[in-house]
Amino acid sequence: MDNSQTGVTAAKGFRAAGVACGLKPNNALDLALVVSDSDCACAGVFTTNRVQAAPVLYDKATLAHAERRAAIRAVVANSRCANACTGEAGLEDAGAMAEATAQAIGCRADQVLVLSTGVIGTRLEMPKIRAGIADAAKCLSRDGGADASRAIMTTDTRHKHSVLRSKYYVIGGMAKGAGMIHPNMATMLAVITTDAKIAPNLLDQALRAAVSQSFNSISIDGDMSTNDTLLVLANGASGYEIRNAQHVAEFTEALTAVCIDLAKQIVRDGEGATKFVEINITGAGNETDAARVAQAIANSPLVKTAIYGGDANWGRVVAAAGYSGVAVEPSKMELWFGDVNVFVNGMPTDFDEADSTRAIAGSEVFIRLDLGQGNARATVWTCDLSHDYVTINGKYRT
Amino acid sequence: MDNSQTGVTAAKGFRAAGVACGLKPNNALDLALVVSDSDCACAGVFTTNRVQAAPVLYDKATLAHAERRAAIRAVVANSRCANACTGEAGLEDAGAMAEATAQAIGCRADQVLVLSTGVIGTRLEMPKIRAGIADAAKCLSRDGGADASRAIMTTDTRHKHSVLRSKYYVIGGMAKGAGMIHPNMATMLAVITTDAKIAPNLLDQALRAAVSQSFNSISIDGDMSTNDTLLVLANGASGYEIRNAQHVAEFTEALTAVCIDLAKQIVRDGEGATKFVEINITGAGNETDAARVAQAIANSPLVKTAIYGGDANWGRVVAAAGYSGVAVEPSKMELWFGDVNVFVNGMPTDFDEADSTRAIAGSEVFIRLDLGQGNARATVWTCDLSHDYVTINGKYRT
Repeated sequence: MDNSQTGVTAAKGFRAAGVACGLKPNNALDLALVVSDSDCACAGVFTTNRVQAAPVLYDKATLAHAERRAAIRAVVANSRCANACTGEAGLEDAGAMAEATAQAIGCRADQVLVLSTGVIGTRLEMPKIRAGIADAAKCLSRDGGADASRAIMTTDTRHKHSVLRSKYYVIGGMAKGAGMIHPNMATMLAVITTDAKIAPNLLDQALRAAVSQSFNSISIDGDMSTNDTLLVLANGASGYEIRNAQHVAEFTEALTAVCIDLAKQIVRDGEGATKFVEINITGAGNETDAARVAQAIANSPLVKTAIYGGDANWGRVVAAAGYSGVAVEPSKMELWFGDVNVFVNGMPTDFDEADSTRAIAGSEVFIRLDLGQGNARATVWTCDLSHDYVTINGKYRT
Repeated sequence: MDNSQTGVTAAKGFRAAGVACGLKPNNALDLALVVSDSDCACAGVFTTNRVQAAPVLYDKATLAHAERRAAIRAVVANSRCANACTGEAGLEDAGAMAEATAQAIGCRADQVLVLSTGVIGTRLEMPKIRAGIADAAKCLSRDGGADASRAIMTTDTRHKHSVLRSKYYVIGGMAKGAGMIHPNMATMLAVITTDAKIAPNLLDQALRAAVSQSFNSISIDGDMSTNDTLLVLANGASGYEIRNAQHVAEFTEALTAVCIDLAKQIVRDGEGATKFVEINITGAGNETDAARVAQAIANSPLVKTAIYGGDANWGRVVAAAGYSGVAVEPSKMELWFGDVNVFVNGMPTDFDEADSTRAIAGSEVFIRLDLGQGNARATVWTCDLSHDYVTINGKYRT
């Protein structure tokens, strides 16, 4: 695969750039620009935190208008500063970012969406941002997807991008994550682009379905940020139109695959993560129950530290299910670490400790808990809780 | 104060012992026995986890009978093994512990309550337990409270006991905590004794009021155990009877004070804790809202790691309030670290960073968040999240 056109520039008609405008030290990339050659249908999903950053409020206001949802041209994003808890002035800064971008690429300000990530409560350094936007507009290219994905990194250790090429269209995207990742969008930014032609309402429908199976099924630490945003832009450059239910189903499946790929990359790169953990709940009475149990296990500090330590501590998994709020019945539960059945009939099996330890020794850990109450299931991806998580988050601002 | 009669043996008519029966290595104390000279009114509060350890099931069954709630004579407790997820055999072991205790001290088995704490999923080593009970019964004394409190320690670094001497009666208690501490009783064991004379139903009422202001207002890591139990025994040896509303109010206040003292000792000794953190929510629309916001902040790994790192990261506190599920309004919120007002009108104040850093530099951190929505308030005590927490919980079983 030609790796030069990846992420947000894999789909036809999109160009991008990532530049260093001085927000980060050491000339690191900190401003990303993604531009479509033509108007895009757009859909977005935003944090449900009651404290919402200025760019979130700004983008939600922009996308509240149907005609704007059909005519987005660009997304501008900066790292290092979240532009959150910055009041009216912060909202003006977000608007000024859109305005500067519009001028630089030649469109209206209401065709530009804005993303910020980083420290909460500090104002954007607008002179640097303006210079960065002008700079980025000059170096937009079909190969710019990788740099754009680098420019939105905060404590991420790897840039994250994904591409899915179907027979008819391409879907590509970039994301940043690291800490504060939690269902309902945590400090997670993602921009996905496609050259499929799709109406904004269908795009919104596909996005919501995809998010529930991907970004809302991951968890790093149970925290949820002020800035989380996922934007999808569809410019129709492939000429292929999503216009009937079959098309929508196929497009949703493809979009979901890209979202899952990006979401898993975020988990694998969780702050301080040493292990990728998949938690499967089966046999639940309904999907809500399944998801609640999965989340309780995924968010348990005791489970996460045990996995970090290589300790197949099934008792903590069972206990977390017990306090999930779901009326689980220990005597009906069956628990597996990998392919080792460790718990059944309310008691541990006589499994070999060496086997269970081996099952969680690697960098990928699979836990399955069957509740024995029905047929519903849920999957959550998470990571372990390590010394490095504490180190990173004890020192983030300094 | 005469320290020899402390904790569970401070009140008249109670004797206790803590012995080493070989469950723990190095001859450490691991079995506690608390005995009253006469029948006690008894009340208990138990974990709300759906997965309940055998001693929890056993004690709940015992206390389900009114005549037994008025005639408890002893509590036997072991550490190292939680007797949880041990099925019918585990329940039989709990019953056998009560039976052995009854024989050793000369009462009926249904006058004995049982506590266990430690690793989940392993059976009790009954020969050691039986020998320990016989041993403990022989060395029961008025000075045994301290040893009893040592015998129930797991990853606790300090034994925990408390005494309150009123004009008319004494209330004393012991507790163990460490990890998995969370409202609604986490791996927390506590036994409180008093020589006040009080009917079981009034004792139960006083206990529930006391717990809501103490053990249910602390949090270490948001996990909740299979074994948490708080028992109160009142033998009436002081001759002073709690018989009218005024008496009940005074007794409840005294019991609450003992519970708060023990609960705070648990937080101060939280696994890996380096700081004691008091979170006060004021100005909430109602008490439920206040408690939810307080818990969200207390359980946020990002807030707890920031405090550990000495970083006055007010943004994480505000963000946690934002995702608490309560409809907070950032523009109405005011946040203080100690006496430094760091956030108002949806934005940080121009506080001096050195002041806010100083406010969280010590071993006691006070955070107050006013929601500006009403007059309700809540307080939660918690601790920071440190490297040692990860170390301890990554290696607990091994």
